[in-house]
Amino acid sequence: MRKGLIFVISGPAGSGKGTVVKLLREMIPDLGFSVSATTRAPRPGEEDGVNYHFMDRERFKSLLEEGMILEHTEYCGNFYGTLKSEAEKVLSEGRDIILEIEVEGALQVKRLMPDECVTVMLIAPDRAELERRLRGRGTETDDVIMKRLERAVTEVGLAENYDYVVVNETDHSEECAAQIKSIITAEHSRYAMMKSTVESYSAE
Amino acid sequence: MRKGLIFVISGPAGSGKGTVVKLLREMIPDLGFSVSATTRAPRPGEEDGVNYHFMDRERFKSLLEEGMILEHTEYCGNFYGTLKSEAEKVLSEGRDIILEIEVEGALQVKRLMPDECVTVMLIAPDRAELERRLRGRGTETDDVIMKRLERAVTEVGLAENYDYVVVNETDHSEECAAQIKSIITAEHSRYAMMKSTVESYSAE
Repeated sequence: MRKGLIFVISGPAGSGKGTVVKLLREMIPDLGFSVSATTRAPRPGEEDGVNYHFMDRERFKSLLEEGMILEHTEYCGNFYGTLKSEAEKVLSEGRDIILEIEVEGALQVKRLMPDECVTVMLIAPDRAELERRLRGRGTETDDVIMKRLERAVTEVGLAENYDYVVVNETDHSEECAAQIKSIITAEHSRYAMMKSTVESYSAE
Repeated sequence: MRKGLIFVISGPAGSGKGTVVKLLREMIPDLGFSVSATTRAPRPGEEDGVNYHFMDRERFKSLLEEGMILEHTEYCGNFYGTLKSEAEKVLSEGRDIILEIEVEGALQVKRLMPDECVTVMLIAPDRAELERRLRGRGTETDDVIMKRLERAVTEVGLAENYDYVVVNETDHSEECAAQIKSIITAEHSRYAMMKSTVESYSAE
């Protein structure tokens, strides 16, 4: 049976990642969804294992140390993360997972699941266009914009750690999403993914 | 500038390679074309360097020994082959090349141009369907069919040497060609191909 893969997509500020990933999710309706782990308290009506895997900080930290959490973030004093066991369950059902995460987390997922993880960095066509996009919001001071620009350029510089780099040309988000979809198709055609099909030939 | 890549497509008997590659060529109109070398004599009206690079057997064999011929075949006592220099010229113009060749030749191209060559093996969905396709022609004896089947199965077994394996489902040649097109798109998005774009960010 087809095995799922994890596609990690990173995009520095100005790459237009939000729009592209939204389009991509629309293009691939049967994507898998892994229930996140969190240390925040359940809200009324939330079910453990459905909305989140709820746990205390101690448990979360110990899973993190054991390499059982693929990536995580802290938000308002609570941890949120993707459990390796949860991801493996989804992949074994033949579904792909898309994770939108920053460089550090992306490389950690790759390290923890090298055979199942494909990393894609989304970038603006060039530095000038990146600056235009960051300025385009028109709400920040020059100082803030230059800091964001510098940070984004640094992040693009880390693209050498990624499997793929995709340029999001201005006003061509659809093409960009289609290009990532092609990467997903291609990765499922790699020999390693097709091994069992090939081997069934000689087994018959 | 975008650099071209060589896509080598092999397909054992019954894989339906002919139809798929024809569709693929229609889908990618700006494919490059490398003028082949041959030891056969020019026919009236044929121009050296346009129709073929004409040469004698001695020259062909010496180029072959030097690793300057990517792949070749012998037909009616004459050699036909793809010159490495010719392929490199086309790739440097930013155009991709599609070569339809058998396993041995495919692996040789990969060996001679590892960074520019991507190999794809096309296969029938399974052994039973492969046999149905081989019998479908209805013109050969059982003995001949079994020999062709055996040979095709052996060739599929060599798929582990290929980068990609694509199944040509019966009556779905269009999807199959589209899948190879996705592989072409994906390969152009690999970090190594995007390196200069990424590096131009920090150079500016």
